[in-house]
Amino acid sequence: MTGTSLDAIDVALCEIQPKGDRQTVTLRSFSSAPYPPELAYLIRRALDGAASMEDLSDLPFLLARAYAEAWRAVDPNGTAEAISVHGQTLWHHPPESTWQAVSGPALAALTERTVIHDFRSADVALGGQGAPLVPLFDHAMLGSATEDCVAVNIGGMANVTLLPAGGSIDLLQAFDTGPGNVLINAICERTFGKRFDAKGALARAGNVIPQALEELQTHPFFAQEPPKSTGREVFNEVLVDHLYRRYAHPSIPSEDLVSTLTELTAWSIADHIHRYQPSTSGVFVGGGGVHNHFLMERLAHYLPDAVVRSCADVGIDPDAKEAMCFAWLGWRTQQGLVGNVPSVTGARSAVVLGSVCRTAGTDGG
Amino acid sequence: MTGTSLDAIDVALCEIQPKGDRQTVTLRSFSSAPYPPELAYLIRRALDGAASMEDLSDLPFLLARAYAEAWRAVDPNGTAEAISVHGQTLWHHPPESTWQAVSGPALAALTERTVIHDFRSADVALGGQGAPLVPLFDHAMLGSATEDCVAVNIGGMANVTLLPAGGSIDLLQAFDTGPGNVLINAICERTFGKRFDAKGALARAGNVIPQALEELQTHPFFAQEPPKSTGREVFNEVLVDHLYRRYAHPSIPSEDLVSTLTELTAWSIADHIHRYQPSTSGVFVGGGGVHNHFLMERLAHYLPDAVVRSCADVGIDPDAKEAMCFAWLGWRTQQGLVGNVPSVTGARSAVVLGSVCRTAGTDGG
Repeated sequence: MTGTSLDAIDVALCEIQPKGDRQTVTLRSFSSAPYPPELAYLIRRALDGAASMEDLSDLPFLLARAYAEAWRAVDPNGTAEAISVHGQTLWHHPPESTWQAVSGPALAALTERTVIHDFRSADVALGGQGAPLVPLFDHAMLGSATEDCVAVNIGGMANVTLLPAGGSIDLLQAFDTGPGNVLINAICERTFGKRFDAKGALARAGNVIPQALEELQTHPFFAQEPPKSTGREVFNEVLVDHLYRRYAHPSIPSEDLVSTLTELTAWSIADHIHRYQPSTSGVFVGGGGVHNHFLMERLAHYLPDAVVRSCADVGIDPDAKEAMCFAWLGWRTQQGLVGNVPSVTGARSAVVLGSVCRTAGTDGG
Repeated sequence: MTGTSLDAIDVALCEIQPKGDRQTVTLRSFSSAPYPPELAYLIRRALDGAASMEDLSDLPFLLARAYAEAWRAVDPNGTAEAISVHGQTLWHHPPESTWQAVSGPALAALTERTVIHDFRSADVALGGQGAPLVPLFDHAMLGSATEDCVAVNIGGMANVTLLPAGGSIDLLQAFDTGPGNVLINAICERTFGKRFDAKGALARAGNVIPQALEELQTHPFFAQEPPKSTGREVFNEVLVDHLYRRYAHPSIPSEDLVSTLTELTAWSIADHIHRYQPSTSGVFVGGGGVHNHFLMERLAHYLPDAVVRSCADVGIDPDAKEAMCFAWLGWRTQQGLVGNVPSVTGARSAVVLGSVCRTAGTDGG
């Protein structure tokens, strides 16, 4: 798994076993290899529209090589039977197109493993957003027959998958709730020169500025009805800079600003759960936000009737969750099972996702 | 099949049946749909490096739509079980990379058929040229246990596959011999304003200019040892223009120039056969050059010990041959059979080519 932040190549070595209608996905090993800097540079040039046709032709092959090396580091004995790879998003422009770069045939040839890739295109071709794809995994792994649950992912943005007790896939709902770590990280950078608030210590040391929180809560995205999605074009450094210039003052500790944005994040996630599944009793949190203990506490504060916990408690490493999801989606593709959820992506129908590259057959004929 | 000329989308509806170790490939229907002009324009912009990232993201999806429509026109009853698609070459840059654009998942979703695509990348990833891929098809379809044969393709350039009697795939040789129709077409355009020499009538009406022929025969490409390949960067309008300016004269009929370049083309193909497989007794010609009857006669003239015929005589439509080859290569990929020939492409090993997109499975789970 590689995301748009270009910071790492996440590799999750998973064992997938059918168990009745469902599957167990067990994480055997996980690591984040740094993106080779020259490759990250080339990708940034491509994202900026400054890459040549030669660059764009070479990029999927360079990515295949980088992914092959990252895999070998995590799986030196080559135990993996197949490699599921998301690829590097260069453009996402539904319903016209989406572009996750990696040469599947090159990765298969280099690793001598079956490769499954290009997971979003079929959904987009059928009128869908090509995203999110994690809700089906949430449903399979975290859904309960007896309890109304919610899967929360706190990455740059935060999103939720509503999992009513025994709910069918057809009625699955998933949407972004607003900022995840993005605003907290930005204010930490602005005020303390830190990339993030480790364990939420800064926020814990501060006090919420009520007027600032109330003002932020009026952001129109929060009131919007789902399905909805957001990104750095809405919640970003500009918004944080505006807050800083308005409220930073010698008499106000910078921790108060961190505290306020942490509160906003927890509130916005919880508020959507209250509004769209008030009966929720179990909340499973994945993504980097899990490591912000204060954020987790505030989320629990806003959801007094639910048990709020890391998805690690049910065997899913919160940092590895997305990579595990794509391993599982690749397994589904190999089984001929559909991988998108039309009620979530907006596609006209459910479809087998991706493209499969097999390696040298047993027969040279 | 779509080539770099951007003139048409060739669709060959083929029935493939295993017959012992080999297969029979029967052409059920063939047509060339014109490339939608706005799509051809977008591709030309991409080839010129003038396309935006949005254009390049959309292009594989637009191609998938155009291919889906071209398929439906040839196969209105939807009899095809699978669609094998070459894609539109945007860059070919071995051993670094190659780029045949088409979204396989989109085409599969739109046609509800299994799609096999991206045939050249695995070979390039293994150090090969990713081309030519037709020689394996020549071997399977045209090879004989008792006769030394040659498969010739006369497209823009001309190439040969040497097929010694009972020869194994490991020793297969294939290479370009020089110009195919490119110089003949260029001189027809220059002198008569015609796109090509229909049936070779112009060449037949003229006489070879011996001095011009001898001069052209000294082109260093012809003496070069195989493996070798060439293209429009070597044999092109510039060379023809040079010839025209040197030999065109009121006393010399323009037909003589057409005749001379036709002779050069026939000679260069035959000369390579003499040099690299003098024992050749059967020559099967495919590609558009077959329709130039005079060129075929001159080729036969230079190869008195061989029977020179169109591959139509053995059931392979010369215009549909390349498309039939890719249909068959896609079938091989589905069977887990290798599709490249390392002795021909230079790849480190033989490998299953391409990437396979399956459609909605039978199970919605």
